[in-house]
Amino acid sequence: MKHVHARLLALPILLALAAPIRAQQTTAVVPGSVPEFGTMWTFDAPPLEYWQTRYGFEATQAWLDHLRLSSIRLPGCSSSFVSEDGLVMTNHHCARSCIDQVSSADHDYLHNGFVAETREDEVRCPGLYVDQLVSIEDVTPRIRGAVAAGTDAMQVTQRDAAIDAVRNECEASSGLRCQVVAFYNGGMYSLYKYRRYDDLRLVMAPELETAFFGGDPDNFTYPRYDLDVSFLRVYENGRPFHPENWLSWSEAGAKDGEPVFVVGNPGSTGRLLTLAQMEYLRDVDYPARLADYQRRLDALYALSKTSPEAARRYENTIFGIENSKKAYRGYLDGLLDASIMQRKEAFESDFRARIEADPALREQYGGTWDAIADAQLELATFATQSRYYALNGSTLLGWAIDLVRLSRQAELPEAERLPAFQGSGLDRVRQGLLRDRPVDTDLERLQLAGWLTAAQDALGAADPLVRALLKGRTPEAAAAALVGASELADAGARASLVEGGLAAVDGCADPMVQAVRDLEPVANSYVKRAAALNAVISANTAKLGQAIYAAYGTALPPDATFTLRISDGVVKGFPMNGTIAPYKTSFYGLFARAAEFDDQPPFQVPARWRDRENQLDLNTPFDFVSTADIIGGNSGSPVVNRAGEVVGLVFDGNIEMLPNRFIFTDDVSRCVSVHSMALIEALRRVYDAAHIADELQGRNR
Amino acid sequence: MKHVHARLLALPILLALAAPIRAQQTTAVVPGSVPEFGTMWTFDAPPLEYWQTRYGFEATQAWLDHLRLSSIRLPGCSSSFVSEDGLVMTNHHCARSCIDQVSSADHDYLHNGFVAETREDEVRCPGLYVDQLVSIEDVTPRIRGAVAAGTDAMQVTQRDAAIDAVRNECEASSGLRCQVVAFYNGGMYSLYKYRRYDDLRLVMAPELETAFFGGDPDNFTYPRYDLDVSFLRVYENGRPFHPENWLSWSEAGAKDGEPVFVVGNPGSTGRLLTLAQMEYLRDVDYPARLADYQRRLDALYALSKTSPEAARRYENTIFGIENSKKAYRGYLDGLLDASIMQRKEAFESDFRARIEADPALREQYGGTWDAIADAQLELATFATQSRYYALNGSTLLGWAIDLVRLSRQAELPEAERLPAFQGSGLDRVRQGLLRDRPVDTDLERLQLAGWLTAAQDALGAADPLVRALLKGRTPEAAAAALVGASELADAGARASLVEGGLAAVDGCADPMVQAVRDLEPVANSYVKRAAALNAVISANTAKLGQAIYAAYGTALPPDATFTLRISDGVVKGFPMNGTIAPYKTSFYGLFARAAEFDDQPPFQVPARWRDRENQLDLNTPFDFVSTADIIGGNSGSPVVNRAGEVVGLVFDGNIEMLPNRFIFTDDVSRCVSVHSMALIEALRRVYDAAHIADELQGRNR
Repeated sequence: MKHVHARLLALPILLALAAPIRAQQTTAVVPGSVPEFGTMWTFDAPPLEYWQTRYGFEATQAWLDHLRLSSIRLPGCSSSFVSEDGLVMTNHHCARSCIDQVSSADHDYLHNGFVAETREDEVRCPGLYVDQLVSIEDVTPRIRGAVAAGTDAMQVTQRDAAIDAVRNECEASSGLRCQVVAFYNGGMYSLYKYRRYDDLRLVMAPELETAFFGGDPDNFTYPRYDLDVSFLRVYENGRPFHPENWLSWSEAGAKDGEPVFVVGNPGSTGRLLTLAQMEYLRDVDYPARLADYQRRLDALYALSKTSPEAARRYENTIFGIENSKKAYRGYLDGLLDASIMQRKEAFESDFRARIEADPALREQYGGTWDAIADAQLELATFATQSRYYALNGSTLLGWAIDLVRLSRQAELPEAERLPAFQGSGLDRVRQGLLRDRPVDTDLERLQLAGWLTAAQDALGAADPLVRALLKGRTPEAAAAALVGASELADAGARASLVEGGLAAVDGCADPMVQAVRDLEPVANSYVKRAAALNAVISANTAKLGQAIYAAYGTALPPDATFTLRISDGVVKGFPMNGTIAPYKTSFYGLFARAAEFDDQPPFQVPARWRDRENQLDLNTPFDFVSTADIIGGNSGSPVVNRAGEVVGLVFDGNIEMLPNRFIFTDDVSRCVSVHSMALIEALRRVYDAAHIADELQGRNR
Repeated sequence: MKHVHARLLALPILLALAAPIRAQQTTAVVPGSVPEFGTMWTFDAPPLEYWQTRYGFEATQAWLDHLRLSSIRLPGCSSSFVSEDGLVMTNHHCARSCIDQVSSADHDYLHNGFVAETREDEVRCPGLYVDQLVSIEDVTPRIRGAVAAGTDAMQVTQRDAAIDAVRNECEASSGLRCQVVAFYNGGMYSLYKYRRYDDLRLVMAPELETAFFGGDPDNFTYPRYDLDVSFLRVYENGRPFHPENWLSWSEAGAKDGEPVFVVGNPGSTGRLLTLAQMEYLRDVDYPARLADYQRRLDALYALSKTSPEAARRYENTIFGIENSKKAYRGYLDGLLDASIMQRKEAFESDFRARIEADPALREQYGGTWDAIADAQLELATFATQSRYYALNGSTLLGWAIDLVRLSRQAELPEAERLPAFQGSGLDRVRQGLLRDRPVDTDLERLQLAGWLTAAQDALGAADPLVRALLKGRTPEAAAAALVGASELADAGARASLVEGGLAAVDGCADPMVQAVRDLEPVANSYVKRAAALNAVISANTAKLGQAIYAAYGTALPPDATFTLRISDGVVKGFPMNGTIAPYKTSFYGLFARAAEFDDQPPFQVPARWRDRENQLDLNTPFDFVSTADIIGGNSGSPVVNRAGEVVGLVFDGNIEMLPNRFIFTDDVSRCVSVHSMALIEALRRVYDAAHIADELQGRNR
């Protein structure tokens, strides 16, 4: 890994080229204290001094390289090599589509679980692949150097072209997958090279009931009793792959108070958001989004009550929305927490002061915060209009506005079109309209009625949109009439409107299309106004990223980018509801929580576990918590100790962790992982999979 | 119970005498909805219509009488007869002093538990008694009629005399214990007659580890795994007493969703407090109180760290303060909860509107709220001064101000003295000073230093108190010097100052006494000013009680008065930390929580339970929650179902319940009880006490 090391040494010089004026060299990170930007470190800027001070731990380059190369990115998730024979550990929910695909009418592996007794029984996961990060290279000067003066749009084009060029060049020369990653909103660019493995086979998965015990209620919470694991194996040329780097297994597993490291691919954080952006989310965006989720849930729950069959039909959709609602509720609670906002304020003050203190930085970046704040404030003035004039209250209504827009945008020169209709966008919209998708008219009617009610409340009865769609009717009556009379549910009807173009759409008598036709120009004006303001915000957040990099360097880890990070933390319980949540749970707890809900779903213990209860050590640690910094995308990340051994498997965060999206705190926010001892005990005593446990523990060698 | 029934019928007529003008007869209670004044009903005003509407349950007078007579008040607690042989069920923590007293060097029943195998083994609890409420009579007209016009103080004297007369008359004529209970701050007076039983013997108590599993951390919380029970037996003439009324046992115990009733003696609530009073507590009193607890804890924890012996010495004191801190933190959180304050505001608006709507009521009570608010606001202006000029920063400092005051107050005529030195007060202070109590000088020094630091921060360096005590030194130096040089720790020194009177104290060279001498006149001025304002508040809260009774009658249950109430609720889990707290816990949960804390105190499972684990049904319900309305004093209350059978035993509330002190809500606040099945299973399988289980279940008959 010579170039990684070189990258570290070369950093100040390269930076000097890109950003000639560096702010003061002091960092915001007090060695040993947890940075508020969190601990999602990139592998080319590990916080060696901070680890040394905080944990007395000296990470070597070999230790870092070993962890990086043992970790592999699964689409949307994280995973790692955990045996010399290419065994891969990830979450059950990360391999769910594979488990579904390899199931059949006779073999419901999702609900019954799966164990390959021999290598021959391992089943290939269609289309699944993993990517191993083999090198990192700073390409900031090259990308930034390609950007000349000009309009924001021109700069974006130049930058994107430079990124494409670097990537293509890399792929051609290396034969690897290459990705240019923008850190700090473009303050820094790195070239990541990946080796891809595309033959993965399913080795073991527990039943869903065990992997996702507690279901929706327990999702995002702790204490928790989930065996959210699956094992895959990488094959090459039809034989198990033997990776050079794989993680060995800790006999004891995670212990109270011990430092741990999580290696994985966190997806997205908003820690660089300004206060003004957070206030917009808090006061405008999230409340509206939550109200929208609730409206959709109301309709779905109402239909679910009509029959058991309907309940089953809407179950997954409801779960998905409940899941989002829980997450956004948690984000909003964080933004409503005065202490969190105060910490953000304090950081922003420090950051602005650093920029103000340096004339060149002030000149370059001083106006950034106010520009963003002004744009956010202006967006807020018509956010309600933007929301309802999106005309997305139901599938049919969405198709109606798409049809009208498509017919009119197609007549315009490219440059005058709405952003969504530029380039390949126009064809994307066309294809979307032509695709044959069934419409659930009961749901349509309820959702549209709910949306119309909300629109009427928000915009007032005199608003053109409300008048055009209600025509003096109640929302329920209007929804019933519109859904009842519209022919847009018929793909053929849509196709003839798409093909007929402007003339067909203008002459169309469909009541949805008619109502929407008059609203489209106003709707477009909101889209354009919002796009212009968002462009200002986007350009200024990019500046902010350069500014933070100039002010703090890599002392503050960049926002998550769905690329490999190493986060640190401590195994530790936390204060909860007046008492203490323990650092770990136990198999006893699984049986307890089931008993306490009278063994009703989603709290039932599967038969297999009931049968084996007497053979289990119920004191076995099940799940555990640590202060490691994670977010969506970290699912399936290995948790390792200072020796680099696996002590657990990340699968969730507690609900107190949701505000970490904006600012990292570790008073009560926790990363939730399966304990390594639970995996071994379950493999040996519940799943008759001693051969896999042996492989993990290196006992087959 | 003829007179109870008569009392209900006679109520409007009697009331008419006392409060000639009744407000509108509509009540604030919507039948079937939970009143915000809670559900601590008196037995002479049961909410029959509300129970009928809410639960479809028709309570008969016989049912009510049976519950009332089966319930017995244990000092500070509640309890009930649970067998025909006079077996009494209460909490372990209610019988703890008895368990302590009957233990010996050889028999540590507190830590090992106690089971009487035969009646002969039952051990008498010295001094313990229980009171059974045999009748209730409205004496409002008599008490109010005795109060003529005059100053507030004169009215208080007249009222107290009337109360004494009613009680003495009652005791002389009935041979029972009599108590005149003031409800609604004196809006209504009732004569309660009790039969006392004063021979109680200990029958069974589990080990403290089981009764108080989870200790301080789990105190006030749920989920919970405590067998907080003890069984006593009432004897009369040396033989088991056979009560006419005792509660029979439910085979199934508390079930999810079922209505339950709690019969016991809630001690004190503040639901009649005005908004102004709550704001004072929120903004002035509680924050200061919590800061004071924290300061004391800081000192105690600092000393605890010095040695294991010190840790043991301060353990109980720390627990007591942590307990209070947790409670007041919960109260304060309630007051800081905007939704709770809004509900209170809505109620106060309704209440004031009712008073305003009636000219006579307006004339009598209209000014009450403003009078209280003005007094609270004025109290707030010098609350900080009052707090520090109490000069109670340490035991020695408290003695110093007592000595100075005693010498000066003794010289004054009775009427001019401070309230605490009037009547027998002067002698009480004298005796307090003469009592020989050891002084912990390390703790003194730390506490005084903490208090001086806080005083300096709060009053400023220029304040006379700060100047007199610090004399330019740091708080630590001043505390060390004052504690080091003062002789007040010596009871003899205090005695000679007490005996020497004004001359001795004026001439005393003790640095504590010297510093305090000059401060005493200012301190007295704060005491007098606060006393005058508190008298205004007290007189007006009494009026408010009359007003609420005039406006709502008994439709709103009165604040708790440590007398018998029946509260209703439903067995029900609640939303907690993003998921659901189950309605019950299980024996599995006990073993789980112990495992999850590595079996460390206070989470260790006692050996007896470990030994018997295999014989236990771990699915047995352990504790459970309901929405019944309880508060301190309800400990040991039986929980019964509609058949009047025991389904549980109240022992705590969850932390979410603490704000119920001010306004009742049942979204997340819960009463925590031991499940009746846990009691039977533990008696039979852990404690070899099948004979007690048989007695409870009526299987020995």
